[in-house]
Amino acid sequence: METNALHQRIRALRANAKLLSSSTQEERNALLLAIAENLQTTYPAIASANQADVIAARAQGQKESLIKRLIFSEEKLEASLAGLKQVAQLADPIGRVKQRRLLDTGLLLEQVSFPIGVIGMIFEARPDALIQIVSLCLKSGNGIILKGGKEAQRTNTVLVEVIKQSCASSSLGDQWLTLLESHGDVDQILGMEEDIDLLIPRGTNQFVKYVMEHTSIPVLGHADGICHLYIDEAADLDKAIEIAYDSKTQYPAACNAIETILVHKKVARSLLPGLAKRLSDANVVIHGDREVCSLISAIPYQDGDWKCEYLQNELNIHMVDSLQMAIDHIEEYGSHHTDVIVSEDPQAMRTFFSLVDSADVFANCSTRFADGYRFGLGAEVGISTAKIHARGPVGLEGLMSTKYLIRGSGQVVSTYTGSEPRQFLHEELSLEGDSLLSGETV
Amino acid sequence: METNALHQRIRALRANAKLLSSSTQEERNALLLAIAENLQTTYPAIASANQADVIAARAQGQKESLIKRLIFSEEKLEASLAGLKQVAQLADPIGRVKQRRLLDTGLLLEQVSFPIGVIGMIFEARPDALIQIVSLCLKSGNGIILKGGKEAQRTNTVLVEVIKQSCASSSLGDQWLTLLESHGDVDQILGMEEDIDLLIPRGTNQFVKYVMEHTSIPVLGHADGICHLYIDEAADLDKAIEIAYDSKTQYPAACNAIETILVHKKVARSLLPGLAKRLSDANVVIHGDREVCSLISAIPYQDGDWKCEYLQNELNIHMVDSLQMAIDHIEEYGSHHTDVIVSEDPQAMRTFFSLVDSADVFANCSTRFADGYRFGLGAEVGISTAKIHARGPVGLEGLMSTKYLIRGSGQVVSTYTGSEPRQFLHEELSLEGDSLLSGETV
Repeated sequence: METNALHQRIRALRANAKLLSSSTQEERNALLLAIAENLQTTYPAIASANQADVIAARAQGQKESLIKRLIFSEEKLEASLAGLKQVAQLADPIGRVKQRRLLDTGLLLEQVSFPIGVIGMIFEARPDALIQIVSLCLKSGNGIILKGGKEAQRTNTVLVEVIKQSCASSSLGDQWLTLLESHGDVDQILGMEEDIDLLIPRGTNQFVKYVMEHTSIPVLGHADGICHLYIDEAADLDKAIEIAYDSKTQYPAACNAIETILVHKKVARSLLPGLAKRLSDANVVIHGDREVCSLISAIPYQDGDWKCEYLQNELNIHMVDSLQMAIDHIEEYGSHHTDVIVSEDPQAMRTFFSLVDSADVFANCSTRFADGYRFGLGAEVGISTAKIHARGPVGLEGLMSTKYLIRGSGQVVSTYTGSEPRQFLHEELSLEGDSLLSGETV
Repeated sequence: METNALHQRIRALRANAKLLSSSTQEERNALLLAIAENLQTTYPAIASANQADVIAARAQGQKESLIKRLIFSEEKLEASLAGLKQVAQLADPIGRVKQRRLLDTGLLLEQVSFPIGVIGMIFEARPDALIQIVSLCLKSGNGIILKGGKEAQRTNTVLVEVIKQSCASSSLGDQWLTLLESHGDVDQILGMEEDIDLLIPRGTNQFVKYVMEHTSIPVLGHADGICHLYIDEAADLDKAIEIAYDSKTQYPAACNAIETILVHKKVARSLLPGLAKRLSDANVVIHGDREVCSLISAIPYQDGDWKCEYLQNELNIHMVDSLQMAIDHIEEYGSHHTDVIVSEDPQAMRTFFSLVDSADVFANCSTRFADGYRFGLGAEVGISTAKIHARGPVGLEGLMSTKYLIRGSGQVVSTYTGSEPRQFLHEELSLEGDSLLSGETV
């Protein structure tokens, strides 16, 4: 699409998104349910477009893992409908009071949650992801620019049509979402920092890095997923073996699968043979340092292995002398995503929790728990390794900003300055009840 | 300073800042009080360096407003000491539990607050600002890179020496803060995205914009401060006039002073003569549109006036037909900093609160209340107009990130998937009590 036409469209979307941000939760929830109903009744058309996408992807020789994510089966429809209904039932994220303070008599301050504005979401060829993203953005009152993987283009086009039809009877209109058609469109929106507030790219490391390096719009997400499992000298070795197996093999292509196991030297001899045997159940290829290779059969470590994201049943095992050495290794080679300690020693756990600077830091469980659904966030738009705004799995809360509101009664600052300044009360008030945004008592 | 030497220094600071992030609040508070004591006893040396700075600034013909901020008087010392003691008394921002959820028996999730890491703070020639910034960063457990205005270089050098001396008896060491010496150093740190987590630049619009455009490190702050006062048809005109006067003249060079007054046409005739008279008490220069110029004496509007940040006793007055037209003007020309409505109509206030997309949106009070101290945040490191992370005046909370922690007992994800998946409990727990970071019951 031509630059100017696309920019016009995004500017119009921004203006229309304001309808969402100032809407009631009843309006947004009704629309979520209308979308669910409409998706159900129009499923044959969606399925037919999806079939065309799948046939084309097969003809292109796409991997079976991509095809599996691309297929929008009736089961996935059902899960999507359940998701829409669940999101409709969540508490309204708009207008939550985060601070409420009486600055002085008749001078009330509130910090309230408010939508970020316009979010650009670039995601893989997964039609059910489109529905999940739309539901979270609609619930949170954000305008949304969608760009899904090109293999799902036919399905996504029909899905967005169906969603827009669902808006026919809503006061919110259908101009708060748009679907981009090409990677060229993505390149263009990277320059629209005036009109897009946040980008959430998902996909390959290279793509996410590309986005981060080519825009001044804030970006939420993660490029690498180099996660570690540290097996402490005080570990329960049976637990350690099962956690290692799950963390690598339960879904090896996921960003929260482990790439390196760090083993304390004191338990290496008793642990490694059993660990290697368990990993061989899934034909996991092991790279080991010299000490590891002296105890089990493994490919000798080569330069760069500690920084490698294998994304398949392949991992490194590295022996360390101490907890501190494990923490230093994670700091040096990790991507600050998800790192786990296996230990029965509370002090070791606390040290690991405190000193490992990652979005998710766990003790005695699989790295694969790093997920918005498993965390109980309802759903996620992605996992962020940023240190500001949202860190870790990002659900509704990560799609919100805030505003400071004051309702005064004519106060001026000069009263509170000078030689005999009036003092502020700064009285903390309960956060319960409606905010100034919607309250009858404004 | 040579690039490599500076980069080494910043990397060392990053490593040392971990001591802060894992320290107890007792250690940090003791150090805050030690700094206060040391500043008091070494004040003669500080005052003497400050006198040299002031003499040099006067010799350079610096403006009196700069000199006023540069002077580190005994009164400012006292205020700084009081500030340090106050910050020491604030609740510990590290390890606050923001979410606590039992995912399943023996599988506890917590989201806890944690320092961002290393913060680069670039600020004007105000020695008391250095002390305030150091106190907030130390309290929040963040390493800090300081660059103050060059006119205060002698004072700042002594202040940082004194602060470092105060660390002599602390287990936290003195390597968590450093003072940069030149603008060339600033240019170099803009490229250190691996080692600096957040930049907070204060100063001229041009400088803040320059920083934003030349780094991929997240930047918190604001460039422009184009704030509006809208006087509604339902305004109390006496209040409106006093709020307008305060919002412009109480400190016209501040970012939260107004640049444009929007007047509803229905009240223009009764309001404008009185408003113009009151503004003339401070010799405020008025630029008006055609309608305004037909009612009062004003400089006729010229292209660009609506986007002009005067930073002195000078402003625009613009007549609007409706509340919506005022909101549209603010969206088009404002900088999303602080905007105020004067109205006695609750519905007009709610509409303004909801549709004006600014960090601070007020009703019936001066824009000058947009300030961390006045808000009751204790202090501020700056005011952010970003939509993500922190928006509005930024206090301790804006210097914090989060971590998700899980304490498990051997759980793996494969248990929760497949044909007969175990269900999550997702039971919300009280946020009271110690976090997994420090809890005895980990």
